[in-house]
Amino acid sequence: MPLLSAAVEAFLGQARVAHLATADAAGQPHVVPIVFVVLDGRLYSPLDAKPKRVPGQRLKRVRNLAANPRVAVVVDRYAEDWSRLGYVLWQGRARLLADGAEADRARAALRAKYSQYTDPALGLDTAALIVVEAERVVVWGSVG
Amino acid sequence: MPLLSAAVEAFLGQARVAHLATADAAGQPHVVPIVFVVLDGRLYSPLDAKPKRVPGQRLKRVRNLAANPRVAVVVDRYAEDWSRLGYVLWQGRARLLADGAEADRARAALRAKYSQYTDPALGLDTAALIVVEAERVVVWGSVG
Repeated sequence: MPLLSAAVEAFLGQARVAHLATADAAGQPHVVPIVFVVLDGRLYSPLDAKPKRVPGQRLKRVRNLAANPRVAVVVDRYAEDWSRLGYVLWQGRARLLADGAEADRARAALRAKYSQYTDPALGLDTAALIVVEAERVVVWGSVG
Repeated sequence: MPLLSAAVEAFLGQARVAHLATADAAGQPHVVPIVFVVLDGRLYSPLDAKPKRVPGQRLKRVRNLAANPRVAVVVDRYAEDWSRLGYVLWQGRARLLADGAEADRARAALRAKYSQYTDPALGLDTAALIVVEAERVVVWGSVG
């Protein structure tokens, strides 16, 4: 995992939403907004109970990961002052994590970041997580 | 191109940024924020002169399109009230458009939507465009 500067860490820490791109075995991309946390250079996103069109394990992003673990995630800022545009792009691989200490720690960080998770209906306690391990990180524009 | 409802058209029309996912021949996804307009069910995004790490034709998104024209684009809204989350996901194919009446019309719509383009340094007049033709559109959550 490439080392992140303090400015990049801060930019990632304050962002509320990221975008996760996957691709199926035929190379058809898919992209959705996700909530996330970054811990020790890994990005975690829960398969929580926000309304979904299908249950977690049948989600397109999950089926794509089973066929092709390669992913990209971008965390970006849009501003009408285009000198303030910036993004951090991760490319690498993802895996699913169901339980254990790593999952518990990520869920605790998600709960601390998003007060929405105090609602038990979101099912964070038992949600599986997508874990992204970056092989390459690109920083573009203004992320200060 | 699937038909878009008036609510979806309005949601797309007011969004300032979208996210474009491509994948290379090996299935490695890539995703970046883009500015865009939608005209007659096609989405247009310019390869303008916002600072880039490399010139337009060498951009990763452009090299990916040459290897694999399949793309996904998501236009979404984040809100702290998660009952207001929503997105419109396009999956389909993209092509590059350099000039002609279709390009001129898309550039005029981009100019009308983004006042930033009054700055000639952005080079919109001569910018090539990525054109996305959706084969499938998914609407999730609240886009009203």
